[in-house]
Amino acid sequence: MNAPLNIKDPLVLFMPSGKRGNFPLGTPVLDAARQLGVYVESVCGGRATCGRCQIEVQEGNFAKHKIVSSNDHISPKGPKEERYERVKGLPDGRRLSCSATIQGDLVVDVPQDTIINAQTIRKAAVDRHIERNPAIQLCFVEVDEPDMHKPLGDLDRLKVVLEHDWGFKNLQVAHHLLADVQKILRKGEWGVTASIHRDPEAEQPTIIALWPGLKNEAYGIACDIGSTTIAIHLVSLLSGRIVASSGTSNPQIRFGEDLMSRVSYVMMNPDGREAMTVAVRQAINELTDKVCTEAGVDRHDILDSVFVANPIMHHLFLGIDPTELGQAPFALAVSGAVHCAASDLALDFNQGARTYLLPCIAGHVGADAAGATLSEGPYRQDKMMLLVDVGTNAEIVLGNRNRVVAASSPTGPAFEGAEISSGQRAAPGAIERVRIDPATLEPKFRVIGSELWSDEDGFAESVADIGVTGICGSAIIEVVAEMYLSGIISEDGVVDGAMAERSARILPNGRTFSYLLHDGTPRITVTQNDIRAIQLAKSALYAGVKLLMEKQGVDHVDTISFAGAFGSFIDPKYAMVLGLIPDCDLSDVKAVGNAAGTGALMALLSRDHRREIESTVQKIEKIETALEPKFQEHFVHAMALPNKVDPFPKLAEQVTLPPRKVLADAAAEGGGGRRRGREGRRGRE
Amino acid sequence: MNAPLNIKDPLVLFMPSGKRGNFPLGTPVLDAARQLGVYVESVCGGRATCGRCQIEVQEGNFAKHKIVSSNDHISPKGPKEERYERVKGLPDGRRLSCSATIQGDLVVDVPQDTIINAQTIRKAAVDRHIERNPAIQLCFVEVDEPDMHKPLGDLDRLKVVLEHDWGFKNLQVAHHLLADVQKILRKGEWGVTASIHRDPEAEQPTIIALWPGLKNEAYGIACDIGSTTIAIHLVSLLSGRIVASSGTSNPQIRFGEDLMSRVSYVMMNPDGREAMTVAVRQAINELTDKVCTEAGVDRHDILDSVFVANPIMHHLFLGIDPTELGQAPFALAVSGAVHCAASDLALDFNQGARTYLLPCIAGHVGADAAGATLSEGPYRQDKMMLLVDVGTNAEIVLGNRNRVVAASSPTGPAFEGAEISSGQRAAPGAIERVRIDPATLEPKFRVIGSELWSDEDGFAESVADIGVTGICGSAIIEVVAEMYLSGIISEDGVVDGAMAERSARILPNGRTFSYLLHDGTPRITVTQNDIRAIQLAKSALYAGVKLLMEKQGVDHVDTISFAGAFGSFIDPKYAMVLGLIPDCDLSDVKAVGNAAGTGALMALLSRDHRREIESTVQKIEKIETALEPKFQEHFVHAMALPNKVDPFPKLAEQVTLPPRKVLADAAAEGGGGRRRGREGRRGRE
Repeated sequence: MNAPLNIKDPLVLFMPSGKRGNFPLGTPVLDAARQLGVYVESVCGGRATCGRCQIEVQEGNFAKHKIVSSNDHISPKGPKEERYERVKGLPDGRRLSCSATIQGDLVVDVPQDTIINAQTIRKAAVDRHIERNPAIQLCFVEVDEPDMHKPLGDLDRLKVVLEHDWGFKNLQVAHHLLADVQKILRKGEWGVTASIHRDPEAEQPTIIALWPGLKNEAYGIACDIGSTTIAIHLVSLLSGRIVASSGTSNPQIRFGEDLMSRVSYVMMNPDGREAMTVAVRQAINELTDKVCTEAGVDRHDILDSVFVANPIMHHLFLGIDPTELGQAPFALAVSGAVHCAASDLALDFNQGARTYLLPCIAGHVGADAAGATLSEGPYRQDKMMLLVDVGTNAEIVLGNRNRVVAASSPTGPAFEGAEISSGQRAAPGAIERVRIDPATLEPKFRVIGSELWSDEDGFAESVADIGVTGICGSAIIEVVAEMYLSGIISEDGVVDGAMAERSARILPNGRTFSYLLHDGTPRITVTQNDIRAIQLAKSALYAGVKLLMEKQGVDHVDTISFAGAFGSFIDPKYAMVLGLIPDCDLSDVKAVGNAAGTGALMALLSRDHRREIESTVQKIEKIETALEPKFQEHFVHAMALPNKVDPFPKLAEQVTLPPRKVLADAAAEGGGGRRRGREGRRGRE
Repeated sequence: MNAPLNIKDPLVLFMPSGKRGNFPLGTPVLDAARQLGVYVESVCGGRATCGRCQIEVQEGNFAKHKIVSSNDHISPKGPKEERYERVKGLPDGRRLSCSATIQGDLVVDVPQDTIINAQTIRKAAVDRHIERNPAIQLCFVEVDEPDMHKPLGDLDRLKVVLEHDWGFKNLQVAHHLLADVQKILRKGEWGVTASIHRDPEAEQPTIIALWPGLKNEAYGIACDIGSTTIAIHLVSLLSGRIVASSGTSNPQIRFGEDLMSRVSYVMMNPDGREAMTVAVRQAINELTDKVCTEAGVDRHDILDSVFVANPIMHHLFLGIDPTELGQAPFALAVSGAVHCAASDLALDFNQGARTYLLPCIAGHVGADAAGATLSEGPYRQDKMMLLVDVGTNAEIVLGNRNRVVAASSPTGPAFEGAEISSGQRAAPGAIERVRIDPATLEPKFRVIGSELWSDEDGFAESVADIGVTGICGSAIIEVVAEMYLSGIISEDGVVDGAMAERSARILPNGRTFSYLLHDGTPRITVTQNDIRAIQLAKSALYAGVKLLMEKQGVDHVDTISFAGAFGSFIDPKYAMVLGLIPDCDLSDVKAVGNAAGTGALMALLSRDHRREIESTVQKIEKIETALEPKFQEHFVHAMALPNKVDPFPKLAEQVTLPPRKVLADAAAEGGGGRRRGREGRRGRE
């Protein structure tokens, strides 16, 4: 701290940061916070007009801190603060820290409005607190009028006062403001609010926007560009509050369902890259329209934006040809964090808005994985955390504060219902939950759009309109796991044809057998090939995890975080029964929703989080599964349910696993043709 | 210097800088230069392929420096240098300083190729040496190939090697390169040349261009945007040589001849500002085409550009509405130096090219005056220098190393032949020189396009095609001065009607008299009103100079520099006879040509000159003539020839001034209606 330490001066403790210091009587609370590096917003620069610098005094005897804090230890409201209260209102107990001065020992609470909307970050950490330190600052100033004796330009006098009042040195100016500065200054009668972009990694402090008078709100966009879905948050940069969230399909789907087919589209079509770049940027502009309309926000008040994406989406969004990512050595054009103007990306925000992209970890482990890593923070804690983002390439991060390793595994699209005979996307009519009675082998299920199980009264009526149309990703996991638990399939994943004697649901299907899940229109069966597809996908994922565990020298993980939409809907128990994830106490497995998007939000609200993930990504060790000799061995072992060699002791405590049953693998021959080379799957969504 | 000082180590002296130091045996000469801060260009980074780092050893006993220097004290050519010599040639005595190492005491000459083309900088300092330190650097590097084990992006590995080989930290990248970096690296087989823009006042070091392989040339543009003429130099940034120069009329003339009428055009026409901005930028692009074609240069090799202009041209070029400059308090939108991308100004150079505009001094003293100040450098010397740029507003700078003051004076367009009954622009047929015989009152003159005086044999034939069409600016000065010297007009500028008895060339003209200069078609006369216009213009200029002299507390100036085209053509003697400039030894009056353009060139070639003029402009005291109570008094005194009160002793030593002759000022009544308020003239070209 800069204030002279005088033990006779009052002691002030700021919460929740816990920073403390002694300050002379009469020091404005805002000044004390600044000197301690406690972030308290202020736009008006101490004029008691913006109301952003509110604090609350905590009353009581804080014995631990040796502070007796009281509202008597802060100055009474002066005329400026009273005027603010009268005109704009001030909640009970709140004070403007620019006006209230220290009159004795204080415990000061800086109210934290940052709450991640629970609905949009499904099942994720609600009430997460993100300490704000945004790259955008709003600064109200009063500029000297022109003086013929000191003919400094209008912009130059603006810079002088911004340096004088706010401490910005060597200020740059966004070029488009040159043409506007005179009108804005005159319209504001020489009182204007400047928006400063300050991120020393990107540029010198720069005036990016200017408004006449006091501008008291600014927004940012945090966006996760998934191959399938684009998700966006509109956030107040001054309070940290999410004011609206939305999502939309990635329109690039029309150029190719999965990543690899989009890369192929670029290679085949001269304008393919451009078309996909335009499509994704346009989708983001439309989503922005949507969240702005919902929140009643002018899109030109958006001043900053942060994006995460997998490497191919990242490159296409930036206008980079992703062809190199389609083949070894999977070279990224740029892996580090990208800073640019939003207008460079044709984003229709404020003309001076800035954009930040989180760094990519490797050619198949993108800025989305970096965002999830920032959000979940394996490197911030002691436990060995496995973070899995099951998109299509699964991105896997394993580590703790000592060391973090990362890889991607080519799981393919089976987990999302593709390559499954009755598979479909999660939509009304899709089966999402399955149970099989081990005695009768009869199933029951639930479909999206109905609250009832299929064996409950009224089920047929409840799905009369939507139908029962297919199996979505989460149910595929469950039905295969239940088939295994009920003995329909062996440890090796072979449907036991002998069971056909016990149940009419076991149907011959060429040289293999299927399981009839629902005898309607359409008929929904689980075929031997479906099971093979799931086995291939899960063993790819598990083999990747296993490699990382070997790198870390551990035989188990302490916690598992499942990121992504898929992770939000699957039941960890069934995932573990299948051997998709390693053995772990089920209570330590959690779905963390769109952790990548949460990471984007954190980087939007704090430059500290940008530096944090940039330095973390540099330290993460990247494992290229294709180059690891043991991958194939792990892969083969992982084809078994849950695994040929690895025990699942914690799972066994909670679930009765069937006795081992090995069948002649007729199906393996039938399904073998589909077991393509791994490289062929690489990069698929 | 950084090398350990060891007196046993060889001593190396670099010329012309005079920097010296001791270096261990075997130190490459280039490294020694770098350690001493001697600027030696190098693109290839010591690979002996670019040939930019050439030096020469001076042989002999340099007793003053206690150095015996010899080519034996430098290593013989190694294989790399020999290869360069064989393939590209090396002039006699030249060595590549990256390869040649120190083997004994040396005097090393760093050849200076910087020569300002004498033809383009008319009558200006030829062979001016500008110490180079350009904002653009070319750096050849060899980038590591992609490695799946260390999946750093291509661009990121480029940054790593640029930091390692060239020391650039926290490098930024021009956004458009993201899409190109992979192709360029592969095309260059991982050897590429990056262009770095390094000007800490503007931005962090930034990669603005990238080429496969070794790129060994880069260019810059230095441009003076005058109200009438745009002048441009195309310059090699690696050698400092001007490779082509050109000029063109400012196309904004079609919107208004003088500055004030262009401001009016903006005020009257909603799209006026935009139209004039487009026009001037387009003209610069066309001029660029012209110089590039002439020099065989690809315009995309232009990486930097520097512009000077008067305030209104400056604002229109930047796309700023100049309306505020048309009225008190003449507020500039921006007065400080402007850094931006050339593409911000629609300049069609390399996509990543940068632009720098010199600072403006005041609302009427522009970046052109700053350029002239940088070129002539009154602040660099002890003598009291008067620097006058007679455009239309005359921009006046007076000072020495202790103090510099500046002002503009509203001279109006009379000096350029406007407002003169027979006035015309300098073009074939225009009278450019005039003498009047004091005995006979007969004139002789020369016209542009003929080498003969009008009283010489063959004159009529020599002008048969071009005619004698009018009087240009330089001749107006001469004819009025000659009329005064021959007694045709009085000290007060009144044509003496009594002289009509002596010469038929004195013609009655209403209540006043005219002088018949040429009795042809057209008839060319100098009217009383013409003389009044010149008197008004010259007294405005002189009154401004006088104010500055008073601010400086001097009664005379030591030297006078006349900048601008007008300054290049007028005869200082006649200017002084008219009292346009203060008394001074005629040998200390010089024309310096387009000093503003020379200043732009200096700022293009050296960032040090940018800093120099930026800090100088901050220190220059600006005098607003309109606010000075004594201006009117000086103005009235200056109406007399040469001046009512100020003596011209040095002029009198060289020219016989006529005895004082005061006539009744009948003309003053006639001419009074034309003596408009000063504000009405302000801002006119």
